[in-house]
Amino acid sequence: MNDKDLKEMFKKITDIEVENVELLKESLTHRSKGESRSYERLEFLGDSILSFLTSEHLYRKLKELNEGELSKKRSEIVNRENLSYIFSKLHFDEIIFVDRKSLKSIPDSIKEDIIESVFGAIYIEKGIRGAKKFFKLVLKNSKDMPDDFYAKNRLQELSLSKYKKLPEFKTEVYREDRFKCEVYLDGKYYSQSFGRSKKESEKKAAKLAIKKIEKENL
Amino acid sequence: MNDKDLKEMFKKITDIEVENVELLKESLTHRSKGESRSYERLEFLGDSILSFLTSEHLYRKLKELNEGELSKKRSEIVNRENLSYIFSKLHFDEIIFVDRKSLKSIPDSIKEDIIESVFGAIYIEKGIRGAKKFFKLVLKNSKDMPDDFYAKNRLQELSLSKYKKLPEFKTEVYREDRFKCEVYLDGKYYSQSFGRSKKESEKKAAKLAIKKIEKENL
Repeated sequence: MNDKDLKEMFKKITDIEVENVELLKESLTHRSKGESRSYERLEFLGDSILSFLTSEHLYRKLKELNEGELSKKRSEIVNRENLSYIFSKLHFDEIIFVDRKSLKSIPDSIKEDIIESVFGAIYIEKGIRGAKKFFKLVLKNSKDMPDDFYAKNRLQELSLSKYKKLPEFKTEVYREDRFKCEVYLDGKYYSQSFGRSKKESEKKAAKLAIKKIEKENL
Repeated sequence: MNDKDLKEMFKKITDIEVENVELLKESLTHRSKGESRSYERLEFLGDSILSFLTSEHLYRKLKELNEGELSKKRSEIVNRENLSYIFSKLHFDEIIFVDRKSLKSIPDSIKEDIIESVFGAIYIEKGIRGAKKFFKLVLKNSKDMPDDFYAKNRLQELSLSKYKKLPEFKTEVYREDRFKCEVYLDGKYYSQSFGRSKKESEKKAAKLAIKKIEKENL
């Protein structure tokens, strides 16, 4: 791939126009390629940028969460599974430089690293504003985003403003590997849902409860 | 302490003039005080800002280090011992809000937390530029800063430019709990020093070698 094509494809994916193609290439190059520069140092930098931007986003957005809950939320965004999911969803595999002979399929660890190193390259060229633009894209393409991610918190806010009480989640194992969650607001049953994990069942039930409240409020 | 005094003392310590005294107070308040707000959420945010600013500083300053070495360097700055040292050196104990009855002396964990939460408060009011100003102060007041911190790296650069070779550190245990380090450049003996840890002896020997090279170059 020549420089012009790379810039264009990167622009198509991220809507960011880079000038410094060498730095961009470095952020997309795995050491298996045997080039003089690969993404590791940029990943060191980008990892800390992503963590900072995620922390700021959650700090501002979820005002009622304490630091432990914020940490948990952060790890729902900044984790290997989610970042490699974003990598694939945005088709980063089409613009990276790896030795395809030794790496037949790209492991999730490399996908995660590259999303982080791209944060580093964008930050070096475009500063914090550029990094924030890429962060918005990452957030938008995160798993569960935005409905499921914020569902429990939105329901909390709604319940507090309506009843001055937190919602109640009654969650139990339901047959083999299924969980069932029922949501109560002010002691009154609102919704129920099922999921393969406790968290999944709670998020889904919270979403249903939110819909019901929104209808009530119409 | 009233708001005016707090603002003045904070300005004296950091050379930063804050407007939002409530937020500043929150960042300086330990939960033992029983106030409605204490520093935990700001610490969640500030911790990630400090880590980001440290990563950026090292990424730009130490171009020849790989990501593992950069991580090690980062942890020399961002660790409990150093941050609590900075807290005391800058006299933050004079402006914090803790319950002095239950906390007769301030544990290092709280000192560390408060340096981080202050990063959060400054960032929220002043943005990344304000946080960078505070970071410079933190860096300047770090243990070993700047001479010892960069000594081995500076010696590497000097040796590479003079001899196209890395310096050689011969470090050994010297009596009970002492280490001895000798530095060789291009096979030639340059300096030796002693320390209570391997790292300390190497840093001190590197500093002496740098002085010798600088004299040679006069």
